[in-house]
Amino acid sequence: MEAVKCSSGGASFEADAECVLRAITPSLDPKRHKGQAGKIAVIGGCREYTGAPYFAAISALKIGADLSHVFCTQGAATVIKSYSPELIVHPILEESYSIIDVDDEGRRQISKKILSEFDKWMERFDCLVIGPGLGRDPFLLECVSKIMTHARESNVPMVVDGDGLFLVTNSIELVSGYRLAVLTPNVNEYKRLVQKVLGGDVDDQNTHGELLSLSKQIGGVTILRKGKSDLISDGEIVQSVSIYGSPRRCGGQGDILSGSVAVFLSWARQHISATKRESTISQTNPTVLGCIAGSALLRKAAALAFKHKKRSTLTTDIIEHLGQSLEAICPAS
Amino acid sequence: MEAVKCSSGGASFEADAECVLRAITPSLDPKRHKGQAGKIAVIGGCREYTGAPYFAAISALKIGADLSHVFCTQGAATVIKSYSPELIVHPILEESYSIIDVDDEGRRQISKKILSEFDKWMERFDCLVIGPGLGRDPFLLECVSKIMTHARESNVPMVVDGDGLFLVTNSIELVSGYRLAVLTPNVNEYKRLVQKVLGGDVDDQNTHGELLSLSKQIGGVTILRKGKSDLISDGEIVQSVSIYGSPRRCGGQGDILSGSVAVFLSWARQHISATKRESTISQTNPTVLGCIAGSALLRKAAALAFKHKKRSTLTTDIIEHLGQSLEAICPAS
Repeated sequence: MEAVKCSSGGASFEADAECVLRAITPSLDPKRHKGQAGKIAVIGGCREYTGAPYFAAISALKIGADLSHVFCTQGAATVIKSYSPELIVHPILEESYSIIDVDDEGRRQISKKILSEFDKWMERFDCLVIGPGLGRDPFLLECVSKIMTHARESNVPMVVDGDGLFLVTNSIELVSGYRLAVLTPNVNEYKRLVQKVLGGDVDDQNTHGELLSLSKQIGGVTILRKGKSDLISDGEIVQSVSIYGSPRRCGGQGDILSGSVAVFLSWARQHISATKRESTISQTNPTVLGCIAGSALLRKAAALAFKHKKRSTLTTDIIEHLGQSLEAICPAS
Repeated sequence: MEAVKCSSGGASFEADAECVLRAITPSLDPKRHKGQAGKIAVIGGCREYTGAPYFAAISALKIGADLSHVFCTQGAATVIKSYSPELIVHPILEESYSIIDVDDEGRRQISKKILSEFDKWMERFDCLVIGPGLGRDPFLLECVSKIMTHARESNVPMVVDGDGLFLVTNSIELVSGYRLAVLTPNVNEYKRLVQKVLGGDVDDQNTHGELLSLSKQIGGVTILRKGKSDLISDGEIVQSVSIYGSPRRCGGQGDILSGSVAVFLSWARQHISATKRESTISQTNPTVLGCIAGSALLRKAAALAFKHKKRSTLTTDIIEHLGQSLEAICPAS
């Protein structure tokens, strides 16, 4: 298999991202059946936010996942469903404002019910995306903490972004030591994570070393630090992806990334299990491979969208170019 | 910087609008991060109106803002969210019909809560757009008055249009003397403003002088009087924009304008602060620059849309041409 020769490894190098993407993307075999190319679930969507979980979930499908679910609040569900008939949307979460008259015992019951509804589905998923448009409601975040704990007990991988990072930064034990977790912080989210975990300010003179320490300190959780170049570390290696993307910084691009990483890391795990760790690439951490591929694809798609739409490029336009970018890197046949 | 030579100034001249637009539009620098190109909030959207706030908010994004929020009533929110996943929509406003059984004390509490929810966000915004699809419900307008007062205390700029102008015409003290406010009246809204503030009928023989007096009388608030030519004054200068637009007068074009002016005036303020008032253009009032650029862009986009769609041109078609018009005036690279 050609893909196994992707140059990577070493302490801190630019990843051969397109090679990684080609290596882990499964071939399209007519014998495969629904679900084998990936089943993703996004946990997010509340009173204010409906776009973010939609972007993450639809991106997963546009890349090639077979099924994409969203778990959100009831109000958000109606809207997210209306964005696309392709998604399966579960209106199971609750925010404090909708249970304002419920006493503590009632809340415990609601929380228990949410968890049991999620548990019915959990083991079907290849990866969860926690956080796009989750909001910061305390009751909702408490339920999501429990969902994360259950997912971890069942070894379901998770990509944590947005308000999920807010949750995790304040309760680092939720992911600490969990090798199947990926965090995807932007500039500000990274800063808060460094302050909380390493107890100091971000050191711009030592970006690789600091990221490595941060990941080690959280027990080998993979971190994708978004920026001009994306930097990825699992506490053992640092890889960067610097393919030129787009200069537009419209909100929502991070959601495409989290949805993409979820799919690619699922594929990387499949690839590694199928090749029995015999290739170089399959000796790399699948979460790192997933981050490399997701970052590369988003950048390619953003560059293409920007070429067409220039200053008016929005996240929706980038999503529309995911397929074309994937085809350019890794043709379907 | 070439742009500093834009011919403008003088007492009453046609603005070199494309030159102004080029001068204030920020370059697309890959080092910038989300939010730096502008965060806009539209206050509007009620039981009857959902299109207007959507038009204003999506136009801001299509021009190049990074984030666009809408604050509206609950019923309007579901619909506005469903128009586009790109917007962040806050269902916080209330109309009298939805609180019909609530007593005075209850109403005070609701009003207080609305204000405190808005305050959590306010200082993040570079500019507010007050009025698109706001409606005229007394309780809702009272809350919006308070929102305007808070925004003013925090020096957040605001563009006031539609029912926001109805509110302001009846309570001129809300904007009087606030140099970061822009009013964008159409023929009828201008007439009511003149009657209320100058106490007479519109004088078509003295359009420039009258606009100058009106603006002075409101303490230097910038007024963009929409018409065959758009006339702009801050009480010190009068500028006009007469670029040919479209003969279609479909509803919603004013919403594109208010959203655009909000973005351009934020950029003009950034430009002025970065160039330290050393260029000619940066000695001009940023609210005036924002109006000139917004007017020019809408006219260009309307002309392009009309070329394609003729009599069936709608506001959505014009929005689809904002990017192309911007690119024609001010190429992204």
